[in-house]
Amino acid sequence: MSALAAYDRLLTQSREAFLLATTSALLAWDQETNLPKGAGGVRAKQLALLAQLQHERMVSPRMAESLAACESDADLLADAERAANVRELRRDHDRATKLPASLVGELAETESKAQHAWAAARSAGDYRRFRPWLDRMIRLQRQKADCLRQPGQSRWDALADLYEPGTTAAGLTALFGRLRERLTDLRQKARDGAVGDASFARVEVDEARQEQFVRAVVQSMGFDFQRGRIDRSAHPFCTTTGDDVRLTTRFRRDNVLDALGSTMHEAGHGLYEQGLEPAHRGTPLGETCSLGIHESQSRFWENHVGRSAAFWSWCWPLAQRTLGTVCNGHTADSVFRSANVVRPSLIRVEADEVTYDLHVMVRFELEREMIDGDLGAPDLPSRWDRLYESYLGIRVPDDRSGCLQDVHWSCGLFGYFPTYTLGNLYAAQLAAAMDRSLGGLAELLRTGRFEVVREWLRRNVHRHGRRHRPAELCLLATGSPLSAEPFLQHLERKVAVLHPG
Amino acid sequence: MSALAAYDRLLTQSREAFLLATTSALLAWDQETNLPKGAGGVRAKQLALLAQLQHERMVSPRMAESLAACESDADLLADAERAANVRELRRDHDRATKLPASLVGELAETESKAQHAWAAARSAGDYRRFRPWLDRMIRLQRQKADCLRQPGQSRWDALADLYEPGTTAAGLTALFGRLRERLTDLRQKARDGAVGDASFARVEVDEARQEQFVRAVVQSMGFDFQRGRIDRSAHPFCTTTGDDVRLTTRFRRDNVLDALGSTMHEAGHGLYEQGLEPAHRGTPLGETCSLGIHESQSRFWENHVGRSAAFWSWCWPLAQRTLGTVCNGHTADSVFRSANVVRPSLIRVEADEVTYDLHVMVRFELEREMIDGDLGAPDLPSRWDRLYESYLGIRVPDDRSGCLQDVHWSCGLFGYFPTYTLGNLYAAQLAAAMDRSLGGLAELLRTGRFEVVREWLRRNVHRHGRRHRPAELCLLATGSPLSAEPFLQHLERKVAVLHPG
Repeated sequence: MSALAAYDRLLTQSREAFLLATTSALLAWDQETNLPKGAGGVRAKQLALLAQLQHERMVSPRMAESLAACESDADLLADAERAANVRELRRDHDRATKLPASLVGELAETESKAQHAWAAARSAGDYRRFRPWLDRMIRLQRQKADCLRQPGQSRWDALADLYEPGTTAAGLTALFGRLRERLTDLRQKARDGAVGDASFARVEVDEARQEQFVRAVVQSMGFDFQRGRIDRSAHPFCTTTGDDVRLTTRFRRDNVLDALGSTMHEAGHGLYEQGLEPAHRGTPLGETCSLGIHESQSRFWENHVGRSAAFWSWCWPLAQRTLGTVCNGHTADSVFRSANVVRPSLIRVEADEVTYDLHVMVRFELEREMIDGDLGAPDLPSRWDRLYESYLGIRVPDDRSGCLQDVHWSCGLFGYFPTYTLGNLYAAQLAAAMDRSLGGLAELLRTGRFEVVREWLRRNVHRHGRRHRPAELCLLATGSPLSAEPFLQHLERKVAVLHPG
Repeated sequence: MSALAAYDRLLTQSREAFLLATTSALLAWDQETNLPKGAGGVRAKQLALLAQLQHERMVSPRMAESLAACESDADLLADAERAANVRELRRDHDRATKLPASLVGELAETESKAQHAWAAARSAGDYRRFRPWLDRMIRLQRQKADCLRQPGQSRWDALADLYEPGTTAAGLTALFGRLRERLTDLRQKARDGAVGDASFARVEVDEARQEQFVRAVVQSMGFDFQRGRIDRSAHPFCTTTGDDVRLTTRFRRDNVLDALGSTMHEAGHGLYEQGLEPAHRGTPLGETCSLGIHESQSRFWENHVGRSAAFWSWCWPLAQRTLGTVCNGHTADSVFRSANVVRPSLIRVEADEVTYDLHVMVRFELEREMIDGDLGAPDLPSRWDRLYESYLGIRVPDDRSGCLQDVHWSCGLFGYFPTYTLGNLYAAQLAAAMDRSLGGLAELLRTGRFEVVREWLRRNVHRHGRRHRPAELCLLATGSPLSAEPFLQHLERKVAVLHPG
């Protein structure tokens, strides 16, 4: 078989895996949005079968043959696009083949049971119910890391590389050290200064008006409803189910800013998915680069747009039209302040921009101790509480708002949390580059010219797919390697405006 | 391998095919209810891949081995349940293996293109656009029949057997001959008598009220919303996507009786699916018996319940509560009359109970001439129009309301239409048996005791799955072989009440 024929076959295999993956995505989307409460037993089996079929394709000897044939042909690899597809499919193939089927099965079963145990423990506020499952999960994650890691690589690094290629604990420690120090300063400054005006955060607005409002914003952002939709689910998410992209959101009567922030966040993810090149659909060049880069897109729209004074200047007339009389007595500026209250809290997903990453750093510490060190499930709660006091300056009243607060570890997601902070850093660095390149981001937001912003992201991030690894993409899009500086400068400017004291 | 081990393996293979089939059902359901307009290219590919994976499993040598091992073990086949599962999986396996992959592929592609051509031809009112596709479809259906048919079996019979096992043109001709004669008499009698009161059929009701009304009726029928849902689509349907059952319906502002009839029809299908034994899920014993039996369940609820005076006596207070002031000036009796106007029409799906089957007979004639005779696409419209004049006594003004009226033939559904009439006959025979066995069906409907009706159907029809072939199931459930008498008696009683002239 010629190298070109092998390459064509490789892409056909990749596209088939994509069809299975997006079918799984529809099964999962439907489970969160539509599946009746009394159903579900069959859905878990459908998802398990589809995952197995996808895995079989990814580890198949036919794919190994196709890859080997492509890799041995210098002419083929001289083409940058083909080389990138081959490189990324090699990565996916190797990752899949390194894990024995028995471990994959045990992980899947333990994840499913651990999630149930976690939900029961959280609901009862009784950590002991989750403890044996966390111990089992730590043991399995170490086994998984042992299968994946290169000689000399730490276990945690091997897991983190799954989510953000190239991430190392050493690199993050360097990045996080200085970041933590200056975020702590900012937290202090914001606390000592005037407290932001939170009054708009709690106005009561019925769901229909909230929905009209957030849909209008998402439409203005350029989300394509001809190839996408918005539905409701308990936890907002974004998924691609084929050639369409689906966001979900939620509405709380007394928190329209939460609905707006969540929806802009998911729409940021959605614009990335919609901005991929259709011609590359089903191959790595048509997939997103990494979880950190994905998160940069959501956090860019949520924070750099949705929490900016310029955006509120544009958005305020729309809010008044759609939300009605609750807007009386408020102004664009007062709502901008409501959207930017800094207050250390217990729950990461509800955190402000200044304290958010301190939560992530706590998790990073704990994970390394669990995976590379000797922290076990029995000691997790006390260690958690100590780190929260040290990093955020607050006391954790109970495990429900402490170490049981979210589902990640019961799902087997270790090495995942840092992508949230990487997303924040990439977002700020992209915003700064865009600001320079477009001659002022704020003016574009103030005048609602979101298409210019979106096109910049499409050109510099979206359309590349997985052509570049995240570090390289960052360098190409912003002109510099990833740094915490743009993020800190963004926050320092904002805190200076809001808390000039 | 022991026969029991082979049987277990066979069921595992069957359950895996079920997971793929229900995943396809979700992809198809979503396409009709949720898929954004600009998407769809990937959906067709996902459906094609899932169909191929399901087909591969059904024709696999492993399944052939499992079947052979089971069939050679007399002890295993002495168990009636196991014997039924083996018999039905043999039927599915043989049907799948008889069709060469090349023909399956050509059929799938032609069906897809023919549907587009049909939609374009219908929209333009130009039959010529569809004509070459119909000719191609006839040729492929004949090829398909040649692959499937037993020695001495006609082509049309081989196709009809796919949808209703045991159906033959000879048997239907005997059944239809007398039926046609007496339906023609009834049509005449209804036309000569007083015209039914159609005034309630055209009242204007907003969609929200219509939806509240039909949901309340479906709830009363006992449809389990914990394992099911109702959504909207252009054409109502019912599908099983795992352990849940999904109906769709539609609302027209000026036709609440259409929404009610369509929804009760689909809910009848849904109750059948929900009434299957969960323990047999994924195996033939947990599947529905045939399309004719399936249609008997929908037509029973649509016509024997929803178009009865007893039902309207129960339903009228509910209608008044939910539909509001449009009910003023109407009574349970006048609405019962509105729901039973007999008027020969051009379109099968809008036909009343008396003339509905005359449409089916026209199709039966035409199909036999196309598949077993020499009727080709060029002569179809004139032949169609002549038969409509002869059977229904009406002139067809154009092909759009004539031979282009529905999608079946462009989808490759030949041999399918008679299941609609078989459904009507089974439904009437089941209703008569139920009436005897429960001591009066009308009283149960008048008092809203639908659970008694539903449980009778569950006990006598639903729970058997594919244990019996349709003819045997009919005999077991009603005590008699299928006959047109109960159906004709039902209609004659109704026409006598409505048109006593």
